[in-house]
Amino acid sequence: MAGNTFGSIFKLTTFGESHGPALGGVVDGCPAGIALNEAAIQTELDKRRPGQGGLAVTARNEPDRIRLLSGVFEGRTTGTSIGFAIENTDQRSRDYGEIKDVFRPGHGDMTYEAKYGLRDYRGGGRSSGRETVSRVAGGAVAGAFLEPLGITVRAAAVELGGIAAESLDIKGAEHRQFFAADDNAVLRWQELVKKVAAQSDTLGGIVEIRAQGVPAGLGEPVFDKLDARLAAALMSVGAVKGIEIGSGFAASRMRGSENNDAMLDTGFASNNAGGILAGISSGQEIVLRAAIKPIPSIALDQHTRDRFGAARTIRVGGRHDICAIPRVVPVLSAMVRLVLADMVLLQRRMGGGT
Amino acid sequence: MAGNTFGSIFKLTTFGESHGPALGGVVDGCPAGIALNEAAIQTELDKRRPGQGGLAVTARNEPDRIRLLSGVFEGRTTGTSIGFAIENTDQRSRDYGEIKDVFRPGHGDMTYEAKYGLRDYRGGGRSSGRETVSRVAGGAVAGAFLEPLGITVRAAAVELGGIAAESLDIKGAEHRQFFAADDNAVLRWQELVKKVAAQSDTLGGIVEIRAQGVPAGLGEPVFDKLDARLAAALMSVGAVKGIEIGSGFAASRMRGSENNDAMLDTGFASNNAGGILAGISSGQEIVLRAAIKPIPSIALDQHTRDRFGAARTIRVGGRHDICAIPRVVPVLSAMVRLVLADMVLLQRRMGGGT
Amino acid sequence: MAGNTFGSIFKLTTFGESHGPALGGVVDGCPAGIALNEAAIQTELDKRRPGQGGLAVTARNEPDRIRLLSGVFEGRTTGTSIGFAIENTDQRSRDYGEIKDVFRPGHGDMTYEAKYGLRDYRGGGRSSGRETVSRVAGGAVAGAFLEPLGITVRAAAVELGGIAAESLDIKGAEHRQFFAADDNAVLRWQELVKKVAAQSDTLGGIVEIRAQGVPAGLGEPVFDKLDARLAAALMSVGAVKGIEIGSGFAASRMRGSENNDAMLDTGFASNNAGGILAGISSGQEIVLRAAIKPIPSIALDQHTRDRFGAARTIRVGGRHDICAIPRVVPVLSAMVRLVLADMVLLQRRMGGGT
Amino acid sequence: MAGNTFGSIFKLTTFGESHGPALGGVVDGCPAGIALNEAAIQTELDKRRPGQGGLAVTARNEPDRIRLLSGVFEGRTTGTSIGFAIENTDQRSRDYGEIKDVFRPGHGDMTYEAKYGLRDYRGGGRSSGRETVSRVAGGAVAGAFLEPLGITVRAAAVELGGIAAESLDIKGAEHRQFFAADDNAVLRWQELVKKVAAQSDTLGGIVEIRAQGVPAGLGEPVFDKLDARLAAALMSVGAVKGIEIGSGFAASRMRGSENNDAMLDTGFASNNAGGILAGISSGQEIVLRAAIKPIPSIALDQHTRDRFGAARTIRVGGRHDICAIPRVVPVLSAMVRLVLADMVLLQRRMGGGT
Repeated sequence: MAGNTFGSIFKLTTFGESHGPALGGVVDGCPAGIALNEAAIQTELDKRRPGQGGLAVTARNEPDRIRLLSGVFEGRTTGTSIGFAIENTDQRSRDYGEIKDVFRPGHGDMTYEAKYGLRDYRGGGRSSGRETVSRVAGGAVAGAFLEPLGITVRAAAVELGGIAAESLDIKGAEHRQFFAADDNAVLRWQELVKKVAAQSDTLGGIVEIRAQGVPAGLGEPVFDKLDARLAAALMSVGAVKGIEIGSGFAASRMRGSENNDAMLDTGFASNNAGGILAGISSGQEIVLRAAIKPIPSIALDQHTRDRFGAARTIRVGGRHDICAIPRVVPVLSAMVRLVLADMVLLQRRMGGGT
Repeated sequence: MAGNTFGSIFKLTTFGESHGPALGGVVDGCPAGIALNEAAIQTELDKRRPGQGGLAVTARNEPDRIRLLSGVFEGRTTGTSIGFAIENTDQRSRDYGEIKDVFRPGHGDMTYEAKYGLRDYRGGGRSSGRETVSRVAGGAVAGAFLEPLGITVRAAAVELGGIAAESLDIKGAEHRQFFAADDNAVLRWQELVKKVAAQSDTLGGIVEIRAQGVPAGLGEPVFDKLDARLAAALMSVGAVKGIEIGSGFAASRMRGSENNDAMLDTGFASNNAGGILAGISSGQEIVLRAAIKPIPSIALDQHTRDRFGAARTIRVGGRHDICAIPRVVPVLSAMVRLVLADMVLLQRRMGGGT
Repeated sequence: MAGNTFGSIFKLTTFGESHGPALGGVVDGCPAGIALNEAAIQTELDKRRPGQGGLAVTARNEPDRIRLLSGVFEGRTTGTSIGFAIENTDQRSRDYGEIKDVFRPGHGDMTYEAKYGLRDYRGGGRSSGRETVSRVAGGAVAGAFLEPLGITVRAAAVELGGIAAESLDIKGAEHRQFFAADDNAVLRWQELVKKVAAQSDTLGGIVEIRAQGVPAGLGEPVFDKLDARLAAALMSVGAVKGIEIGSGFAASRMRGSENNDAMLDTGFASNNAGGILAGISSGQEIVLRAAIKPIPSIALDQHTRDRFGAARTIRVGGRHDICAIPRVVPVLSAMVRLVLADMVLLQRRMGGGT
Repeated sequence: MAGNTFGSIFKLTTFGESHGPALGGVVDGCPAGIALNEAAIQTELDKRRPGQGGLAVTARNEPDRIRLLSGVFEGRTTGTSIGFAIENTDQRSRDYGEIKDVFRPGHGDMTYEAKYGLRDYRGGGRSSGRETVSRVAGGAVAGAFLEPLGITVRAAAVELGGIAAESLDIKGAEHRQFFAADDNAVLRWQELVKKVAAQSDTLGGIVEIRAQGVPAGLGEPVFDKLDARLAAALMSVGAVKGIEIGSGFAASRMRGSENNDAMLDTGFASNNAGGILAGISSGQEIVLRAAIKPIPSIALDQHTRDRFGAARTIRVGGRHDICAIPRVVPVLSAMVRLVLADMVLLQRRMGGGT
């Protein structure tokens, strides 16, 4: 209700601030008997670490060691709630003097203050991108549930700073810098990042997420359509400002005869629907895109105001990325996995008959 | 859980099929003492009626009379659940022979069959756009709650069949054909609709929704961000394939220094954020866009298959619109109202102190 | 959230006041393919009607005709939401003058006024026992789901006005006056009811509910234990003031060696647990008891106060029962069916492995 | 959904097994600005520790140190989720050989196995009473929220092994052995406990919980009545088999004229209702009783069966209490606090007008 729980049956509840003692969460509703251990979760967490996306990295060194606290016994889930924690080991004592009172443009400083009347200003507190570490851990548990069902989720950066990749090799993306969709993009993006970093500015981009092996029948009519759930999942990630399913905005410019996906003996002739018809999966690949805004922390003077309403100028220094893309890619995959795990469990009880 | 309830505190639960006895719903969580009567809801329902959007209309004549069944006493809500129903008066007995077994491309026929093992094939059953009548009724109740708080939601069609309106006069849109964003668009869209109708084809478009008077502080961190809730709300409407908040996909191509909204003495200098920072409203106007796919029912031959797996050709006749735009506009407004009513009530209890 | 929805997967949302246009509800989450029609629901509603419990009846004549509005097609559930309504046909126009301002002792008049600042005073509005008609209808849908699974729920009055039945023939109770647990009780209770009616006073009693065929494994650890859900279900019925599971309060006076149910080759040796161990069904019969308070509407002078704080005397006339027992019995059965349907669906996805 | 979350707005999600690495939880929905620190929570945890209830104690030495992981900044809640953990420091490596395969009578061994197909058999895993440590911690956070509102919850043992206390001094109970309702009871219970311990048997009892300062208007009509929520809260505690509100089962034997609480100038003349009318608090003291079954772990031979269906005899040794009473008292108080915090927040938005 207060926003820290995601999902309806396969549920993830998270906690933790950028500079508090620890982050973590509870996965509730994971069926019993699923093979799970810390190493599998750690692998996903490591993808989110700085350096994975290459050059445009944060200077902050976060080991992010997962610790499973419950719900797993002899290497298998027991059906009870799975608690986990990641200690904040790199809480450098520093002076937050200015940020304490001045609202950083593009950040949640002003809105958290408006909402709560107070805020943990250290590193953005709960509004820091650091909270996504718990999403990735929860998504890894979802992945452990989905894997034996043959459902796989992958993501790649398809555009960065307005430069689009020319092709989509989503399997290869996992090992490419920026999780880039193709090799050519990597070089062009490296160049752009270097240039923009020198200008003390930042960049956005577009991520494509695809889910394969999703059976037909997932999604609940009307309000909990699979695409509605996915849209909420992706949009809940801080940097996301737009979502597309299948042909997305392009669909709005097609004729019905173009956009409809004909069904042939061999299956669907196209996938403008992105694998979802009337909110329910069709058995085709699920295709999603998310628009990522440029990181708002820039070391350039910006006009803003402080908590007391006075005009101020701020220049946000510190350990910051040039582009959220590499770090957000595993987070978006995690969110899609969480949705699919939930929808599989929801469907498990709604099929025909008793 | 099974998808027919929307919201967490201000909740709408709906029911009804295209050709069943009645559609309706229950609004639960509306505070006591709100002025409400059938006429106010009827006004919203009438906007959704064919003919409101002008030329591109359905031939189906649906009076859609709202009947309030509970929760209102002497013109005010009592705090208890508000039941309502809209009878299906125009259920012409007809032959559904072909649709019964053959899956219409772009529709939920195939996915409902996969999900449930059976389906109410008459007019699409629950997957028919007809279900949105209950959304509009529920949204009208939300509107009655929001109005005394000074929160207003408006929507306009800003693009149809790839032709964009040149300006946005959202107040005027209410009385314009297609709920068009400006006068010039109307003529150009009329022409296009006429042409495409003659080709037995259909069109999509883009709708912009704006909410004014939204106080700073609405939205819950992490998973129930205001933008995440809004994205789910809009994406839950059948025809929607893409969502943008504020500058949306364009933000992904901006630099941080361009995209950040500076705060001046006079307020924000721009609104790329669309009124939402870190998932919480900033007090600026909320700006949303939804991409609407072309209507999949076309009177042209299409390749498909039937329930038994055999290849078939289908031509979907009957009473169908050329474009969902005019009818979907009041539905999208209704969804945004439902989200805002819910978020206002959520915020009412999270503010500072006890 | 505002209290008009019950259940987590198999969900019932209800609406309706004693003297409003109609009562009804929505069942969401009922799987597809379940045989269901209005007649089966009507049978349950008829059990709740005055006269079923015999002499101690209300003078109010309520036909209570169920009307299914959606979710059923060709005699089977479709998996979509099931709307239903029951018109209030007997809304005699009358003068509520006194009740409008004076709080009836033992009723919700004072608390509704405190909660909402206004109330629908006609017949108690939403706080009237009349709302239970929607519970019985929803419970009948749950029953249609449970029946093919071999799960049956029965209830009987085991005590009335302090006079206990001597034996429990729960199958026979359905056709006995007061839904009495045995024949002897009927005569003694008739006599008592007659006597107390002559004194313008009212009576309470105890109902026992039993569920057979419940498989082992229903119930969720910690907070959603099967007994916790059942306790909430029964206690949510207006007249209930106490709940027991299995040996109940008597268990608190036993030694561990007495209360533990040994497991023999032939099954459990006893059932002090009432079929629930650690919140999860054991496969034994589920055994519950509910204490029903005497009806608070009595035609005797009582001290009270009015909305304005002034001392008043009230004598509640009108069409009232002597004892809630006969009418509450089918309501309690309905609530238990709703819980079990929900728990069956919850369990369907938590079993071993994927 | 899977049972590890309690509450709707003020929500507690817990995790942890008897012998896993740690127990803990997340409180979500606690308003911002509430004074909170580890010491206040520790005080409540210490009440639950063995030795608090006096003689009838567990031999297990659990320091149970609370560690707050998030959601508190500079001594005040921030409105974000509050994570906490309690390490399991006393996990003596031992041989669980017999318990691994043999079901202990009166325990959840058999039902967990039936539900999940596997179980963490070490000390009962999730079904161990040890999980209540997280409830007490969550309840302490609720208490910190309720305290400035003037709402206090207290509990006392009113009966143990069938011996009732003669009076109720609920404030004094906090410092009395067994949390006994009066001084006389202590001596009689000590004697009984000694005797029963010598017989290797165990005892149950009855706890009364009272809440003062609860304003009129808490509780939601129909399904989320305050008494329904309280009944679920108490019944969710493992050892509870019966619940009473106000006069409880005794009400079922009263006449309406006796049971109704008259309203005088000076307030209510009696409190048979237990402070709740039509499911909504009346402003009177809330009065609840819970029946506690005897602890099922007894060092006497009992007939049972093993996982493979074979007849077995078991004698449960180890570190076990004679009576759950002293340890369960702070748990029941915690549960009532959690319900009240939730209901206060629910009510905060339903009052008259916008």
